[in-house]
Amino acid sequence: MMYKLYDYRPSGNGYKVRLLMSHLGIPYDYVEKNIIRGETRTPEFLAINPNGRVPVLELEPGVCLPESNAILIYLSEGTAFLPADRLERALVMQWLFFEQYSHEPNIATPRFILTYLQKGDEYRDVLEKKRELGYAALGVMEKRLAEHPFLVGDRYTIADIALYAYTHVADEGGFSLEAYPGIRAWIDRIQAQPNYVAILP
Amino acid sequence: MMYKLYDYRPSGNGYKVRLLMSHLGIPYDYVEKNIIRGETRTPEFLAINPNGRVPVLELEPGVCLPESNAILIYLSEGTAFLPADRLERALVMQWLFFEQYSHEPNIATPRFILTYLQKGDEYRDVLEKKRELGYAALGVMEKRLAEHPFLVGDRYTIADIALYAYTHVADEGGFSLEAYPGIRAWIDRIQAQPNYVAILP
Repeated sequence: MMYKLYDYRPSGNGYKVRLLMSHLGIPYDYVEKNIIRGETRTPEFLAINPNGRVPVLELEPGVCLPESNAILIYLSEGTAFLPADRLERALVMQWLFFEQYSHEPNIATPRFILTYLQKGDEYRDVLEKKRELGYAALGVMEKRLAEHPFLVGDRYTIADIALYAYTHVADEGGFSLEAYPGIRAWIDRIQAQPNYVAILP
Repeated sequence: MMYKLYDYRPSGNGYKVRLLMSHLGIPYDYVEKNIIRGETRTPEFLAINPNGRVPVLELEPGVCLPESNAILIYLSEGTAFLPADRLERALVMQWLFFEQYSHEPNIATPRFILTYLQKGDEYRDVLEKKRELGYAALGVMEKRLAEHPFLVGDRYTIADIALYAYTHVADEGGFSLEAYPGIRAWIDRIQAQPNYVAILP
């Protein structure tokens, strides 16, 4: 059967999966769940993912895989997007966990608050703290990308896809990439990849 | 050469690595970095991990792997702690990302604030929010563990090690496991594993 992706269009986490599937030429069914309208917290959806979040990839009827980066690993095993070399693969994993712990909460969340909820005033203090931590995360990426074309080895992998998703729309969360030339060149490099697709149609 | 682990004794993230290495019988050198004294933010340490965090496993001189869960994956490949089955492996990954995104920030951070920084009053609002999200994460675990012995399949894996690290000391962050009998039985099950070691000597 065809994979089924439960997702919310503006989600960078969902976009990671859409981008990888486009690169790999994998067809899939698409089911939109609007998180702002609470559609991932219904009893039906909690049966799909008890953690109440998208994306979720339904691998076969009733077999569901949540967590965007776990889906990236699952789909990329045995492809050029996940290195066969043990150390390189470990470094890919390192970037994936960095993304979920140090990057996404500080760069994706401000974008959601400012651009989607439009509640910048209400969350002023939270945004201030996340701004500092978000720039720190961008600094860690810049340190690598100032001297290398991609995050691991010299090839485009799921580490790049995972970090690209929210970095390339960081301006929607109030971040400027002006001082990050390595990141900007890397963004151009990713957008030039075969079968690249944008986050929103 | 021997692995070298940069770590902070009370860290649950570091403990994950210590526990797995004990199970696997892997010897290692140990270097303590006190995060409260800022020892992970020195220029020397930032050369080891630009993200300024422990644990970091030095695989060979100059080759460093940050991120506790990436280290767990690296060390467990080819062992019974990481399933060979593709779907089971994907579900392990799913729990590892769940741990870093939904569990650790809400259960480990309150423990650090209350027990190590001892600044509960100063962080009252933050703790209130994390308390709600932390119990939600425990609820997701309980849903699984009420009916299964371990998080993936019927065997003890790195998914269990990753989630156990901060769950079994959740009381130090103000959480009660009273209403989570599945989690409590699972904690007992883990503590009965061969070569189990405690988080602090």
